[in-house]
Amino acid sequence: MSAPWTLDPQLAVDTVAVGDLPLARVRLVKDANYPWLLLVPRRTGASELTDLAEGEQVQLLGEIRAAADALKQTVPCDKLNIATLGNMVPQLHVHVIARTTADAAWPKAVWGAVPPRAYDPADMEALLAKLRARLKTAVS
Amino acid sequence: MSAPWTLDPQLAVDTVAVGDLPLARVRLVKDANYPWLLLVPRRTGASELTDLAEGEQVQLLGEIRAAADALKQTVPCDKLNIATLGNMVPQLHVHVIARTTADAAWPKAVWGAVPPRAYDPADMEALLAKLRARLKTAVS
Repeated sequence: MSAPWTLDPQLAVDTVAVGDLPLARVRLVKDANYPWLLLVPRRTGASELTDLAEGEQVQLLGEIRAAADALKQTVPCDKLNIATLGNMVPQLHVHVIARTTADAAWPKAVWGAVPPRAYDPADMEALLAKLRARLKTAVS
Repeated sequence: MSAPWTLDPQLAVDTVAVGDLPLARVRLVKDANYPWLLLVPRRTGASELTDLAEGEQVQLLGEIRAAADALKQTVPCDKLNIATLGNMVPQLHVHVIARTTADAAWPKAVWGAVPPRAYDPADMEALLAKLRARLKTAVS
């Protein structure tokens, strides 16, 4: 019997809960520089995209699309950045980031570009509420 | 009648030809620091993953898997990095990069981390030949 899936502790520290899609847990990164979601498939031991079964990969693709659509409907977005790197945290997770040409790192990639900026708590709650409503619509 | 698809000139300068998969043109980035493929879907005007039809997104996912498998069979690889950013070049392109814990940027993301390093021409030709053979097998 394999161990139940749990969110990586570092990912837990760096993010707050948005909700669960059928395959992936959705988290918001605590960095007000960019609206930035993580999708973390609830599959124990998965590190690479290719560790998922093909059907799960297609499911994850659909959930990436839902996350991207929810961001685009909620915040300004000139370009989506979508990536799975995992060099620091091996648990498979997909970044879905709404970039604007005015953001703190543009046009550079966000990783390591500038220090994270804390959200105003009320702003973060408002953003989370909108994202949750739109993701719920996307999968229902 | 829409214009025929052509590879973005900047991508053309930064890469060399590997070959065509059913949807995407495959290119090798001219940076010997990391074996690094680009998959460029031959769809005029596509900038975001979500600009492709859903069936094309699934096709692209399969081609990403083929590129990832070809890299893993050919070069040392501790972690795959897979990303679509497009902040500098808007033409939709997907990075598929074989990372090792000994590479020049590890564990950082590759973009902007260290200057590109030129391939030895014979090494590059040998790498291209192996990748072409493995990608051909993957789609035939």
